[in-house]
Amino acid sequence: MTDSSKTPIDFWFDFSSPYGYLMAEKIDDLAAKYGRKVKWHPILLGVIFQTLGTRPPLDGTSSKSTYMWRDFARSARFMGIAYNPPSRFPLASQNAARAFYWLHGQDCALARQFARAVYRAFFVDDRDISSPETVLDIGAGLGVDREALAAALQNPDIKARLKDEVDAAIKVGVFGSPHVIIDGEAFFGADRLPQMERWLETGGF
Amino acid sequence: MTDSSKTPIDFWFDFSSPYGYLMAEKIDDLAAKYGRKVKWHPILLGVIFQTLGTRPPLDGTSSKSTYMWRDFARSARFMGIAYNPPSRFPLASQNAARAFYWLHGQDCALARQFARAVYRAFFVDDRDISSPETVLDIGAGLGVDREALAAALQNPDIKARLKDEVDAAIKVGVFGSPHVIIDGEAFFGADRLPQMERWLETGGF
Repeated sequence: MTDSSKTPIDFWFDFSSPYGYLMAEKIDDLAAKYGRKVKWHPILLGVIFQTLGTRPPLDGTSSKSTYMWRDFARSARFMGIAYNPPSRFPLASQNAARAFYWLHGQDCALARQFARAVYRAFFVDDRDISSPETVLDIGAGLGVDREALAAALQNPDIKARLKDEVDAAIKVGVFGSPHVIIDGEAFFGADRLPQMERWLETGGF
Repeated sequence: MTDSSKTPIDFWFDFSSPYGYLMAEKIDDLAAKYGRKVKWHPILLGVIFQTLGTRPPLDGTSSKSTYMWRDFARSARFMGIAYNPPSRFPLASQNAARAFYWLHGQDCALARQFARAVYRAFFVDDRDISSPETVLDIGAGLGVDREALAAALQNPDIKARLKDEVDAAIKVGVFGSPHVIIDGEAFFGADRLPQMERWLETGGF
C-alpha cells in the first residue's frame, strides 16, 4: 500500500475559469486540514476543447450562459469568496500560465501566491490578465524581477512545459476546469468540494 | 410583496436524467422543511437539446462521459441514495412523462409517487422505462387502472400537455435536468441542493 498522505492532490485549472477561481480559494486549506499537499497545474482549456472536439460551456447569449454567470456570482457568495463579474471574458491565459511554471521552478509557494493573485486580478479587480503587462505587474507586486519574468514568458522551455502540462491533463482525463484528482479519483467543479472533503476524510466512499 | 411561502417551487426534469433522479429523491423533503410545495414537470431533454442546438452531456466514450458515470454513482453514495448504473442509456421518456401528466390530472400525490417509482425502476432496478409495458406495470403497482393508463399514453390532449411543458421549460430557461426555480432563481443540478436550502432559509443570498 502506498502512503496516500504523501501523494499530492492534482489541481488542474485555467486562469480564465470562474469555477477554477472558486476552487483555488479553497483547495489548499482543505488539503492542509487532511495533511495533504496540492500540486497546481494551470492549463489552456481552449486547447483541450479543441483537442477533444468539445465546446466551451459559455457561448454568449444562451440560457445556459445566462444561468452560469448568475451561478458564478451566487456560488461565490455561497462560498464566502469575493467576486465581481469581469467585463472581458474569456481571456487568453497562456502568459499567466507560463509565468506560473517559471516561478514554480524557483519557488513553489511564490508561484501559488502568484496564481491566487492572477485569479483575483481577473475575478475581483476586472484586470486584463491576458496582457503580458498585467502579468508582469502582478509578479512585480510579489517582488518578482520584472525583466526576468518578461524573458520567461518567451522562454521556449517554459512554453514547452505548458504544452506538456496540457498534454498530461488530456491524458489523465481533464475535460474542464477545475478538475481535481485525489488518489486517482476525479472531481470536476468547485461544487465537488464537499465530496472531496468526505473523500479525504474517509479515504474513499 | 407576494407571499412566496405560497409559491410552489418548479422542478423540471427528464426521467432519463441520473442527476434528475437524485434531485427527485430530495426536493420534496427540502421544500417541506421550509413550508413549500414543489411542482414537478417531467420534460423531454432531447427536444430541448435539439431546439437549443446543444449536445447532451453524455456522448459515450469521452473522458467527460467516463467521469459522469463515476460521478453519478459517487454522488448517489454521497447523498445516501440507492443507485445502480442502468444497462441501457439514455431511454426515451415520453411514455413515463405522459403517464405522469395524466395521473397528475387525477391525483397529484399519486403522480409524484409514480414519478419516484419510474426513477427507481430506471436507476435502481435497471428496468426499461421507455417501454409502455413497464410504465403500465409501474402504474398498476400503485393501483392505477392499466387500460385507462394505456389509453392515456395515446391521448392527444396528454401528448399536447407534454409538448406545452417542454415549450414552457424552454421559455423559462431550462437547458438541462434537473433545473429548479425558486421564486425566479434558477438552480441547475442536484449539486445545487445546498444553495437551494440556503435560498429557502434566507429568502435569497
